[in-house]
Amino acid sequence: MSSEFPHAVRRRGLMLVLSSPSGAGKTTISREILAQDANIVMSVSATTRPRRPGEQDGVNYNFTDLTAFNLMVNRRELLEYAKVFDNYYGTPAAPVEVLLSGGRDVLFDIDWQGTQQLAEQARDDLVSVFILPPSMVELGRRLESRAQDSAEVVALRMAKAADEMTHYAEYDYIVINRDVAQSVAQTLAILQAERLRRDRQIGLGEFVKGLRQG
Amino acid sequence: MSSEFPHAVRRRGLMLVLSSPSGAGKTTISREILAQDANIVMSVSATTRPRRPGEQDGVNYNFTDLTAFNLMVNRRELLEYAKVFDNYYGTPAAPVEVLLSGGRDVLFDIDWQGTQQLAEQARDDLVSVFILPPSMVELGRRLESRAQDSAEVVALRMAKAADEMTHYAEYDYIVINRDVAQSVAQTLAILQAERLRRDRQIGLGEFVKGLRQG
Repeated sequence: MSSEFPHAVRRRGLMLVLSSPSGAGKTTISREILAQDANIVMSVSATTRPRRPGEQDGVNYNFTDLTAFNLMVNRRELLEYAKVFDNYYGTPAAPVEVLLSGGRDVLFDIDWQGTQQLAEQARDDLVSVFILPPSMVELGRRLESRAQDSAEVVALRMAKAADEMTHYAEYDYIVINRDVAQSVAQTLAILQAERLRRDRQIGLGEFVKGLRQG
Repeated sequence: MSSEFPHAVRRRGLMLVLSSPSGAGKTTISREILAQDANIVMSVSATTRPRRPGEQDGVNYNFTDLTAFNLMVNRRELLEYAKVFDNYYGTPAAPVEVLLSGGRDVLFDIDWQGTQQLAEQARDDLVSVFILPPSMVELGRRLESRAQDSAEVVALRMAKAADEMTHYAEYDYIVINRDVAQSVAQTLAILQAERLRRDRQIGLGEFVKGLRQG
């Protein structure tokens, strides 16, 4: 084997989980990451929730009925799932595995409960980032600026946010979202760095062996 | 406490170790990292080697004599040390600790033996990156372009490089140096990401507590 063409080093994809209390800026950061990095795609959840106008089956969600959803749960075909109000949401494992095996990364916008389930099933593939607001006053401002909500709804969301934040300590990385552009750059740096971890690179042994024989 | 001024989150510095076979581009990458990132400084080694013209004591090295060096070894004041030919080289622990405590990062350009010693003494502070050449032909070209060396010296260096590479598997991250600018960007991403690891951030518990009370 010529050392000009050593064995190729491939990479297994990773699962990038972003969690945060609502209002901390996670949705904006997710959208920017998908826009700025061509190798990561959003995970598509299955849900029993009815399709809303403008939503596409297989793009926004995989819309399914309760029977089909229960079957996936019983067959352990979901990486994680949760009931929110009257609807179920979950992540089918098979399409994620296809992406990871092909070296693509997958972005998850899930809460600490989903992250705990993912960690149980796929810790080695998981990179978890918790996004914190810089202050509660700022979080309140962001929640209030969603103009349609009443003061009561905002207060409930603030309480829920305060609750969610107690789980920050289960995450690998913490980003304090003082400035969206900076938080996006930081999250992209985490993604880029994790791709370079030795244990995500496949074929390094052969590559180095090829070099040494070259 | 006002939630506009939550507890500050500080950070303990980290030790970024770059190792590679000679000729793989480590020196260039180190120089660029120091130039592009204001928060990381080069570790200054102590050495018994005589000062060369142009070298400054306390900048390039801390020049010392064998008695003083032995004393540091016996007092366990060095994070790592090695004998190279007739000279000793080592990293005094105290100035590194001052930097890390102050939130500064420290760059180390050391081989796998030094890295192993650092890992024994300070695993939590350590981020280790191994830089590989893209091919042995390319490595040979780079070593040969150091025009003053004879073919024999180059061959010896190639053999030593092949030997050093067997230790890639002890490192956290692997960068294959196909393009210097890309390798610098990748190493800077590793540095930026590692700064965001939850366990390097000090005061997060108080910060979140402050947020929740805010």
